[in-house]
Amino acid sequence: MAKDRVLALSGGVGGAKLALGLGRVLPGDALTIVANTGDDFQHLGLSISPDLDTLLYTLGGLDNSATGWGQRDETWNFMTALKKLGGEAWFQLGDRDLATHVERTRRLAAGEPLSSIIDNFRNRFGIAARILPMSDDKVRTRVKTVEGWLDFQDYFVRQQCRPAISDITFAGAADATMLPGFRDALTDNSLRAIIVCPSNPFISIEPILAVPGVRSAIREAEVPVIAISPIIGGQAVKGPTAKMMKELGIEASAAAVARRYGDLIDAYVVDHADAESCANLGMTIVPAKALMETIEDREALARIALDAADQVMAAA
Amino acid sequence: MAKDRVLALSGGVGGAKLALGLGRVLPGDALTIVANTGDDFQHLGLSISPDLDTLLYTLGGLDNSATGWGQRDETWNFMTALKKLGGEAWFQLGDRDLATHVERTRRLAAGEPLSSIIDNFRNRFGIAARILPMSDDKVRTRVKTVEGWLDFQDYFVRQQCRPAISDITFAGAADATMLPGFRDALTDNSLRAIIVCPSNPFISIEPILAVPGVRSAIREAEVPVIAISPIIGGQAVKGPTAKMMKELGIEASAAAVARRYGDLIDAYVVDHADAESCANLGMTIVPAKALMETIEDREALARIALDAADQVMAAA
Repeated sequence: MAKDRVLALSGGVGGAKLALGLGRVLPGDALTIVANTGDDFQHLGLSISPDLDTLLYTLGGLDNSATGWGQRDETWNFMTALKKLGGEAWFQLGDRDLATHVERTRRLAAGEPLSSIIDNFRNRFGIAARILPMSDDKVRTRVKTVEGWLDFQDYFVRQQCRPAISDITFAGAADATMLPGFRDALTDNSLRAIIVCPSNPFISIEPILAVPGVRSAIREAEVPVIAISPIIGGQAVKGPTAKMMKELGIEASAAAVARRYGDLIDAYVVDHADAESCANLGMTIVPAKALMETIEDREALARIALDAADQVMAAA
Repeated sequence: MAKDRVLALSGGVGGAKLALGLGRVLPGDALTIVANTGDDFQHLGLSISPDLDTLLYTLGGLDNSATGWGQRDETWNFMTALKKLGGEAWFQLGDRDLATHVERTRRLAAGEPLSSIIDNFRNRFGIAARILPMSDDKVRTRVKTVEGWLDFQDYFVRQQCRPAISDITFAGAADATMLPGFRDALTDNSLRAIIVCPSNPFISIEPILAVPGVRSAIREAEVPVIAISPIIGGQAVKGPTAKMMKELGIEASAAAVARRYGDLIDAYVVDHADAESCANLGMTIVPAKALMETIEDREALARIALDAADQVMAAA
């Protein structure tokens, strides 16, 4: 059987860029993306799934490249009117984006699982790749700061990552059930590679890995696992990864991310600038241009990750 | 004590036009408007109060004179995005309007009464008049048609009043508690007049009158009750009033509306065209230009209604 299916683990913006590249270089429906739902939260009575939505908008060609989140050509009349009513305005909800949250919330309240709703949305957006939440159960990332434990969006958006963090937890993860479609993708005999997208390891990838059975299913899949570094030359491309690493007492480096994943990964794609510092990690290091500025960059990095997987497999 | 307070009973568009006129010709906070909530409904998980919102937008200067509902300078990107997701699109929710529904729904879910939320909204909109729901309890207008009993918005918006109706009910009315502020306004010694706005009697005014204690409190107030006809020359200015009257076996006329209100009202303001047909109703008839095309028309009709009340009082 041809090994033609690819499974990607992804958070939001950075992960979605590579996921888009993978979707463009892979045939048809070969790609399955599993998204972090630890960032999900309730706001204004609405169920919001930031990473799933960033993937939907990015792969659906609706993403806002200026902000990195939300939809392009967005308008903000809802927010303006909400402020006038004294509503909570710290989390920006665009007029178009709001439809995703209202419709998801309505369907969840009617008893439909999140995975089913997202699958319907991605079909409506004309996305060939499958997009799955890691679980239909509630997992909520919380961070410990000097102000105590904070819900993730409170820390991430309301406080803009200002409080120094000392710990992270994924509330509900221990009791969550890995999405059956996620398990099926990992046990599929035609699985070619598992790609860990260049997302924040602590708040985007580790919530996925925290769901019982995920780590073991990845190991048992016996397919190459390729991670792409979210850190380039000691800096995160976007977001608080480097700041969080320092606060957690971890060196903000591509090598430190690889050590965090440990023997879960077989090869590690890093920027040329980080190749030397990653040389002695005991895994295959693939230097590349890791900064994805253009659509061609995304496709090129996707091809490099897939080639790395094929080389690992050929060497096995 | 000076009799300087006025209580108006109102539905949506037509009632709100006169309520705006009353608010403009009365000093400061002399006006209290009690709105029908029988049209309220749940849609997309949101709590929507069409008549309260039309009053808020009209008196807040935010109304859309082209549609008669919703806000001016509205945008529709939420609806466009919702349709793309396959959401229910039969009830139009503008991007600005949506903030009212989301914030109301959030606050209701947090346990705040509707009356408190609306009072806060009208303050934020800079409206001097008080705007009250008839009750904080749920009352839902339903209409009997050849297709069976329909929820009001299903009949009114989704089916655009097409099915012929044979009966109307106000579910929950018998168990609803009249809003204390409504009762207080009726027992206020300084009450000068009760104005029944030119709203649909069957679906806008009668739900208010169906709340236990309202009719008796109006009678016991012993202040002039002045109604303004919503029918001009056998036609409703807007909406299905005339059509509904015919289907219910009631002549579509200004006189028939007055007979419906019966001895609850002391004087009846009708269009000049209807003065003759209303001559023998056994109540004071005040001919006027009943069609409110301009803001001056609204103020003039408000003054005529208030003068009629004062004349009834002087004659008593």
